[in-house]
Amino acid sequence: MHAFSRQEMDCIKDCLDCHKICLGLAMTHCLDEGSDHIAPQHFRLMMDCAAIRATVADFIMHKSQFHRQMCALCAEVCQACAMDCQHLAGMEECVAACRSCAQVCRTMA
Amino acid sequence: MHAFSRQEMDCIKDCLDCHKICLGLAMTHCLDEGSDHIAPQHFRLMMDCAAIRATVADFIMHKSQFHRQMCALCAEVCQACAMDCQHLAGMEECVAACRSCAQVCRTMA
Amino acid sequence: MHAFSRQEMDCIKDCLDCHKICLGLAMTHCLDEGSDHIAPQHFRLMMDCAAIRATVADFIMHKSQFHRQMCALCAEVCQACAMDCQHLAGMEECVAACRSCAQVCRTMA
Amino acid sequence: MHAFSRQEMDCIKDCLDCHKICLGLAMTHCLDEGSDHIAPQHFRLMMDCAAIRATVADFIMHKSQFHRQMCALCAEVCQACAMDCQHLAGMEECVAACRSCAQVCRTMA
Repeated sequence: MHAFSRQEMDCIKDCLDCHKICLGLAMTHCLDEGSDHIAPQHFRLMMDCAAIRATVADFIMHKSQFHRQMCALCAEVCQACAMDCQHLAGMEECVAACRSCAQVCRTMA
Repeated sequence: MHAFSRQEMDCIKDCLDCHKICLGLAMTHCLDEGSDHIAPQHFRLMMDCAAIRATVADFIMHKSQFHRQMCALCAEVCQACAMDCQHLAGMEECVAACRSCAQVCRTMA
Repeated sequence: MHAFSRQEMDCIKDCLDCHKICLGLAMTHCLDEGSDHIAPQHFRLMMDCAAIRATVADFIMHKSQFHRQMCALCAEVCQACAMDCQHLAGMEECVAACRSCAQVCRTMA
Repeated sequence: MHAFSRQEMDCIKDCLDCHKICLGLAMTHCLDEGSDHIAPQHFRLMMDCAAIRATVADFIMHKSQFHRQMCALCAEVCQACAMDCQHLAGMEECVAACRSCAQVCRTMA
């Protein structure tokens, strides 16, 4: 993977880590807890977050000419997810991952 | 699927149709033809196009609050792909699909 | 898309249609209804179904040498989803799509 | 992510790492080198590999009842990709990642 800079590798790693945490918590903790954890607008945001991070990672691996715009949008989605999750019990790992991913994506953008 | 408007359904359909054409042609016609059809920058753009359309379709199905921004970015990627493909033989179907998808996504955005 | 047979095109179409219906209903009807519609095991099955169909469609577009095995597994997931959904109100469209997709995938396998 | 065992976390990590290496090398090294690196059947196998690993990771995050069958199929795809890549220059990282992922997936299956 010599073709990728340290910054690109970090961004791919952060996006895939966050994808894993977001989707993994949504499918276990959120579904098991119910109540606010599965409020439609909250749960959809978790799914958006998981989906866009996988796509951002793919765009960087593609050496896409559009990766900056995709990173900028991903940072927004992550920020919104972090803010939504911080009011819910047991989502600390998701909040931290979203904030970290938002920062890395903003730097890339 | 009563929760989705005609416009949303059309956009999902167009994105999935274009995803199919872009990925299908890249993996058959482009790889078989070689030469300009697999110039790295061209091929990556085909992959970007296939990837972002699947994500746009998922965002609309998620009733995502970020679907407009994702559609706007998708329109740009489709437009770039259409312009790149129109110089290559046998890509007429891809050019037409990309232009149609770009227009539908701009309307959504 | 001359490289694809009628059967392959039909299978791609059915998988992407079912992906759309499964993910779209999960993110709207199921989250809005709550109760049995978001029972963890049911909801996860809906997500499995949406995910594997997108991958089956991609494998056929890739002209993958493994598309038969992927279709066979997809047929099992679709069958399980159809059986799970038929006990729930408002999921008729999903049951029909899953059954149709299961049959098309079995034929491909 | 308390709901996931050490083995599940390892499998998700290995699948996402391999997805990154396979897709990243295909889009840079393979396209840049050309020749055997973009032989249609080889390149499609790289794409299959990238696609199925992302889906396997998602199935484990979903706590899917079908994750064993998906892991078994993924192990086969990874094994085929490792064998195909070992004859090509500069693909050592991909061969190693595919072998490691095949082993982890077989254990899960």
